[in-house]
Amino acid sequence: MSFIYQRTVHFQDTDAAGVVYFANVLAMCHEAYEESLAASGINLKSFFSNPTVAIPIVHASVDFLRPMFCGDQIFIHLMTKHLDSGRFELVYQMVAMADQMVAKAITRHACIDPISRNRKELPDEMMLWLQQWSGLKEDRTLD
Amino acid sequence: MSFIYQRTVHFQDTDAAGVVYFANVLAMCHEAYEESLAASGINLKSFFSNPTVAIPIVHASVDFLRPMFCGDQIFIHLMTKHLDSGRFELVYQMVAMADQMVAKAITRHACIDPISRNRKELPDEMMLWLQQWSGLKEDRTLD
Amino acid sequence: MSFIYQRTVHFQDTDAAGVVYFANVLAMCHEAYEESLAASGINLKSFFSNPTVAIPIVHASVDFLRPMFCGDQIFIHLMTKHLDSGRFELVYQMVAMADQMVAKAITRHACIDPISRNRKELPDEMMLWLQQWSGLKEDRTLD
Amino acid sequence: MSFIYQRTVHFQDTDAAGVVYFANVLAMCHEAYEESLAASGINLKSFFSNPTVAIPIVHASVDFLRPMFCGDQIFIHLMTKHLDSGRFELVYQMVAMADQMVAKAITRHACIDPISRNRKELPDEMMLWLQQWSGLKEDRTLD
Repeated sequence: MSFIYQRTVHFQDTDAAGVVYFANVLAMCHEAYEESLAASGINLKSFFSNPTVAIPIVHASVDFLRPMFCGDQIFIHLMTKHLDSGRFELVYQMVAMADQMVAKAITRHACIDPISRNRKELPDEMMLWLQQWSGLKEDRTLD
Repeated sequence: MSFIYQRTVHFQDTDAAGVVYFANVLAMCHEAYEESLAASGINLKSFFSNPTVAIPIVHASVDFLRPMFCGDQIFIHLMTKHLDSGRFELVYQMVAMADQMVAKAITRHACIDPISRNRKELPDEMMLWLQQWSGLKEDRTLD
Repeated sequence: MSFIYQRTVHFQDTDAAGVVYFANVLAMCHEAYEESLAASGINLKSFFSNPTVAIPIVHASVDFLRPMFCGDQIFIHLMTKHLDSGRFELVYQMVAMADQMVAKAITRHACIDPISRNRKELPDEMMLWLQQWSGLKEDRTLD
Repeated sequence: MSFIYQRTVHFQDTDAAGVVYFANVLAMCHEAYEESLAASGINLKSFFSNPTVAIPIVHASVDFLRPMFCGDQIFIHLMTKHLDSGRFELVYQMVAMADQMVAKAITRHACIDPISRNRKELPDEMMLWLQQWSGLKEDRTLD
């Protein structure tokens, strides 16, 4: 199963060119990530301020295919990819009404100790979450 | 009737103090405003890029009562106040789970010609929207 | 002496109406506050993540007088007002080229213990900073 | 010559993990782009709201090497790469004090007609700007 997050484009997301400001597209993807964590029962407040485990984004890339306007309904399809014991990748497909792909993005995350910043293994709850949203063949027709 | 908008606090809304960054509280209120417009059938894309009518915010104020954390569910109660032929005020009450008031805000809006920036009368669709969400006595117990 | 912070309007600050998004005006004011703290020798990283003292904003208000566009040079004049042992207010006057006032804002801050959220006295370094930028008569002609 | 933009990390740039929110790193790069345009005499207001030519970002990628904290001084080295008559790429190297590389990013831009969204040739002023900041061998030691 992939995780699907629906998001209305807000006025604040736009810029003077009349469309969504490029970096805000990645912020919308991060919201999908947060919602998928919450959907797996993970407490967001403690997750993002955990003093013993942090999972920062180490890489992000995004392709902008079509402009997004204030009021647009966007569906973000999120799929997880387990890379190794301490790292995973998220693939986002942003689809507007009428099944138009508007953007594609990837974020890569690495688990670390927030003080030493040394690599750590992913916590068990993250392993379960990775399995839950890793995608099924049926959902991959959008690839 | 007041308009109620539900909003999860996103990671991007927070700052290094661990809570929602103060100015983002007003941005959350603006989202409630946008949703109330859409709920009255107003097209947001054309509304916010209309070359003949603009309704900028001329004043805003906000009281911060309690901190908001990533993942918190916030309910924003919006009520309209019609001031005169070209101006209105919006009152926002932000309530967390367990009916705790977390913030209160006001925005004042004035209708203008976007080129000359002279005052104009509010369009008819805005008059209807003002009536629709002006609040009923039952809803005002939160005041 | 008042503190003066110069700021170019960035593309990200703007919205689809072509001007600075209203809540970003307060964010620009907060930057002036941060720069004034740094100018008084306060370390921003430890200031904003101090586990024993927090000084959250409890109230903000802003009047929008003229629109700001991408590339505009804005001068923010900040003046401190000491209210009592645990609270202060900041007054911001935002001036564009040709001495046009574009916005005025106020933020009110209260010193608390970040865990109990009880009121605390302002630290000594904040008392010095309050004195330093409290404004002189000559600078108040813009009032 | 590469273009160098100095930027203090603001409180608003950070998130509840105490460091700069990932998508804001790209927004900081965009500021460097804007400053380099202004340094070449390009008017930002008309550039970003031009009704006949738009140059949207079609791709972005970023590697996060070290966390950035509120108050940090960041130097962004921007270099232009002319791809073809209608497209260019920008390479950003973000360096903290003590010459530590904190992030690397790329944005790819394509010139279009904003109405039809068909490809167009880059305007002459952009060709000059591309030449001006395309980098010299001496500056490339950071590559």
